[in-house]
Amino acid sequence: MTEGEFIAALRALAGNPAARALADDAAVLEVGGETLVLTHDVLVEGVHVLPGSDPADIAWKLVAVNLSDLAAKGAEPLGILLGHMLGDGDARFIEGLREVLAAYDVPLLGGDTVKGLGPRSWGVTAIGRAMHVPVPSRGGAEAGDGVFVTGVLGAAMLGHAALTGGAEADTAAYLRPAPLLAEGRALAPHVTAMMDVSDGLLLDCWRLAGASGVTLALDGAAIPVADERRRGECLRWGDDYQLLFTAPADTALPVAASRIGTVVPLDGGHLRLDGRGLSLDDGLGYTHG
Amino acid sequence: MTEGEFIAALRALAGNPAARALADDAAVLEVGGETLVLTHDVLVEGVHVLPGSDPADIAWKLVAVNLSDLAAKGAEPLGILLGHMLGDGDARFIEGLREVLAAYDVPLLGGDTVKGLGPRSWGVTAIGRAMHVPVPSRGGAEAGDGVFVTGVLGAAMLGHAALTGGAEADTAAYLRPAPLLAEGRALAPHVTAMMDVSDGLLLDCWRLAGASGVTLALDGAAIPVADERRRGECLRWGDDYQLLFTAPADTALPVAASRIGTVVPLDGGHLRLDGRGLSLDDGLGYTHG
Repeated sequence: MTEGEFIAALRALAGNPAARALADDAAVLEVGGETLVLTHDVLVEGVHVLPGSDPADIAWKLVAVNLSDLAAKGAEPLGILLGHMLGDGDARFIEGLREVLAAYDVPLLGGDTVKGLGPRSWGVTAIGRAMHVPVPSRGGAEAGDGVFVTGVLGAAMLGHAALTGGAEADTAAYLRPAPLLAEGRALAPHVTAMMDVSDGLLLDCWRLAGASGVTLALDGAAIPVADERRRGECLRWGDDYQLLFTAPADTALPVAASRIGTVVPLDGGHLRLDGRGLSLDDGLGYTHG
Repeated sequence: MTEGEFIAALRALAGNPAARALADDAAVLEVGGETLVLTHDVLVEGVHVLPGSDPADIAWKLVAVNLSDLAAKGAEPLGILLGHMLGDGDARFIEGLREVLAAYDVPLLGGDTVKGLGPRSWGVTAIGRAMHVPVPSRGGAEAGDGVFVTGVLGAAMLGHAALTGGAEADTAAYLRPAPLLAEGRALAPHVTAMMDVSDGLLLDCWRLAGASGVTLALDGAAIPVADERRRGECLRWGDDYQLLFTAPADTALPVAASRIGTVVPLDGGHLRLDGRGLSLDDGLGYTHG
């Protein structure tokens, strides 16, 4: 059974709109008068985490990627649960956990600790309260909307290169990504669709367009990148955790963002870059592992 | 850093009553007018799961142990999130997941799938809504209360023996434990403290007594066991997921349960069995791994 088949089977099992949340998005749950947002991400040593990583950075990233999922829903974090596999450097792990929870004022609610037998893995569940309803999803982009992204793409890529190849660059963008919680909450009332850029801008544009049943026509030169010489890679590298969203083109945005394209009616594929159609076969980003 | 030190550090980090939820209990979260219960458990291949296990049974148990934590809080499940490491037998995993979710009418809300590099691990987060407030905890037992347990202890032990040693016994009690959701909800308004028996009756009694600041005086002969010849082991084996609770001795209980002892004021240690004091050094049950 391939990963794609497994996820398709999970979606069939969920059998409802929340199925979209599987493996790529946060779940939205109505409870009484509240709208909750739930997300769960797992990091595996050697797959998502560089060998020799400081466990404090692992803890930071593990929490930050989940908070980024809440940010894209305009949700306020209520807390996290941690699934922790014990091992070397656990005191550093605690230190990083303390730092990220303090930085974003998020309570540690509970979790589980286990002994492992091989490469370690860690999971975090984050729960948040939606501050704007309807909760932004990937599925609301409409023809005529502008396509926007916060910040700069590729900073995490350069940080990764500095860690692995000795290049000069700020490693914090890769090691300690900043979930854009305040920005997501400010944007939520204004967007028609929103998600965080975790797996590469082009791939995430393709996913947003697919969920919305539209095509995103991007203007490559308008996309801010961290390294002009590696522009193509910057558009395909993940881990930046910027917010990608669509909104009516004349919206007065409450957050600084770059307009990088326009939503057009579905036109063959889901993505065009400078007029040229792109598909998944073109290597749009990082495919989940 | 030992596991105990790690958990102590997490508790210090949480810095509030919810810290009790770490590694051994469900978290309770007030959101608006709702009281939510959240629990997260991880199973590791080779640690918590027998080699050669049917992945359908793994999926069942993974969900069931989390639902059992909700049961002990008298909570109604709202859904689960799954952290899944891909591997052999994933189609069987899906089948077991389908069965357990259907059996307890629990939606799959979301989650994450990852590629692994060694022994697999799986995590589930369950979220529920408390049906009775205050939510039962381990910390409310009072001197004079009766101590009660549902069902029979040791059935899972016999099932495990049948799987590993070829003994004749029903394996379902070990492979497919039944979370006592309806029982927990019925009991919640009547109990002073409640928890599920996951790590051995004596150990869990010791924990409940510790959280309540009392001593539990147990009458060994009153504890129903699945195998009289292995009574001592039955009291120390986990995985039965029965409900252990305390309630005023004259309470008319809505659920069948055995009275197995009495809560007395703290008297040296937290546990007495037939008049003899027992401590953690006596091997009361399964210590978390």
